[in-house]
Amino acid sequence: MIMAEECTFCRIIAGQIPATIIHSDDRTFAFLDINPANKGHTLVLTRKHYENLNEIPANELGSLFEAVQKISKAIEKGLKAEGYNILMNNKRPAGQIIDHAHIHIIPRFKGDEMQVRLGWAYKKYEQGEDKTISEKIKKHL
Amino acid sequence: MIMAEECTFCRIIAGQIPATIIHSDDRTFAFLDINPANKGHTLVLTRKHYENLNEIPANELGSLFEAVQKISKAIEKGLKAEGYNILMNNKRPAGQIIDHAHIHIIPRFKGDEMQVRLGWAYKKYEQGEDKTISEKIKKHL
Repeated sequence: MIMAEECTFCRIIAGQIPATIIHSDDRTFAFLDINPANKGHTLVLTRKHYENLNEIPANELGSLFEAVQKISKAIEKGLKAEGYNILMNNKRPAGQIIDHAHIHIIPRFKGDEMQVRLGWAYKKYEQGEDKTISEKIKKHL
Repeated sequence: MIMAEECTFCRIIAGQIPATIIHSDDRTFAFLDINPANKGHTLVLTRKHYENLNEIPANELGSLFEAVQKISKAIEKGLKAEGYNILMNNKRPAGQIIDHAHIHIIPRFKGDEMQVRLGWAYKKYEQGEDKTISEKIKKHL
């Protein structure tokens, strides 16, 4: 599917919904998130409509993450950021809201009002549980 | 630099520090995070020592994120996850602790004990501020 008619991000790419555009080329597109975690928070996506990382053809990942890298560097320089998070939420339980795969670039500053590590509590493996889990994963590799 | 002697992740790759290995090929490596946000939380990295995303040569991004994609799918299938987050912390103010670039894959489950969106409060742009910020970024693209 090249464009999903009801997809907000496809409509932004098509110019049907306004956005503050950061980058546009033949394969990738980027604009400011309207609900920024920090000012300058940018979304990078493929022009083609893929729902999430699972659906993006492997041979398109290089160009997509080259755009992410290039834009991240520009955000750091342009906003004098002291670091940045790259975040991609895949599917609802992971917090994905718009089903057009997109990567968040969040500029970070010392003492910004975000939790430094984006807030997670550590869990603990029972003895041997890490091995069991790794075997379950490796069966599918 | 191929290997940084004092780097914990280089030493894991070299077999000098034990880890629960998920994947290994000639360019990339993956193992379970010992402090998992959810069980199955995996770190994917290049075998070569690069400090953060800025330092990874653009032509190595494709193979790195192909490994991320492949391992994410295996985590979903193997652990019956209902989604996953991809997270990369670049530099200290973004929460990076080990200076060998690495990507977190965090399996997610409905009702898991994590914040769905990894916890950020939205900030607001003043009128016109989004344009000013986008111009600052685009100057460096």
